[in-house]
Amino acid sequence: MIINTRVIEFSCHSDEYGSLVALESNRDIPFSTKRVYYIYEVDELMRRGFHSHNDLEQVMICVHGSVKILLKTPFEEEVITLNDPTQGLYVGPMVWREMFDWQQDAVLLVLASEYYDENDYIRNYEEYEIMARKHFRGSGV
Amino acid sequence: MIINTRVIEFSCHSDEYGSLVALESNRDIPFSTKRVYYIYEVDELMRRGFHSHNDLEQVMICVHGSVKILLKTPFEEEVITLNDPTQGLYVGPMVWREMFDWQQDAVLLVLASEYYDENDYIRNYEEYEIMARKHFRGSGV
Repeated sequence: MIINTRVIEFSCHSDEYGSLVALESNRDIPFSTKRVYYIYEVDELMRRGFHSHNDLEQVMICVHGSVKILLKTPFEEEVITLNDPTQGLYVGPMVWREMFDWQQDAVLLVLASEYYDENDYIRNYEEYEIMARKHFRGSGV
Repeated sequence: MIINTRVIEFSCHSDEYGSLVALESNRDIPFSTKRVYYIYEVDELMRRGFHSHNDLEQVMICVHGSVKILLKTPFEEEVITLNDPTQGLYVGPMVWREMFDWQQDAVLLVLASEYYDENDYIRNYEEYEIMARKHFRGSGV
């Protein structure tokens, strides 16, 4: 997968009472969760995201329906389909992301390592590309 | 509402890109979130929960569909319908809870103040009732 991203498989407790997935900070999730957010009621044709973060780490889980995530650096890109509540997509710093193809009332849950900070966002792709080339220089990608 | 419970209204950022609700620890949520879990794939007729906690604090949000929560102490009981992702149900210590009437592929998201600890559970209602009477004595309920 793309640098600074990976898929995490979570344990699921399933029985006749239903299914339960538990995510503990610094255990199942590789950071302390300071912020949890969820995105829903997104039109199927809508594309959102279009940013990277300087420092923020996130884990994305599609807890209902399905959504596709484009992950991109200046060097590579990949599309991940999230449609399984037992699967988390870790996205670390300096990875460009776009979310699209929102199906069946998709609900995307995101756990984040920091509070919201507008200064941590890079929203212009050209600016991102310059910063990412510097950031990843020497990292072997 | 029942002692140690309340409904929290969250801000929702809605626009043509969809809806987003963000929950920051110790801000929107009255504790540090150490554990996040979600319950799904529950049969409509299934009833689950049937326990109280000694110390744990939780906020429950139905992020898809709807579910009813029975909250109960030895002194009172109440049923709350959760069907709105902008509404959180805070449930503090020593409140008995049961979840039922799971509708439309309900997904119940729960933010919890501590890691899982089986010793914090009270799963026998008779035992709970004795402990809760002691716990709430002098609290004015």
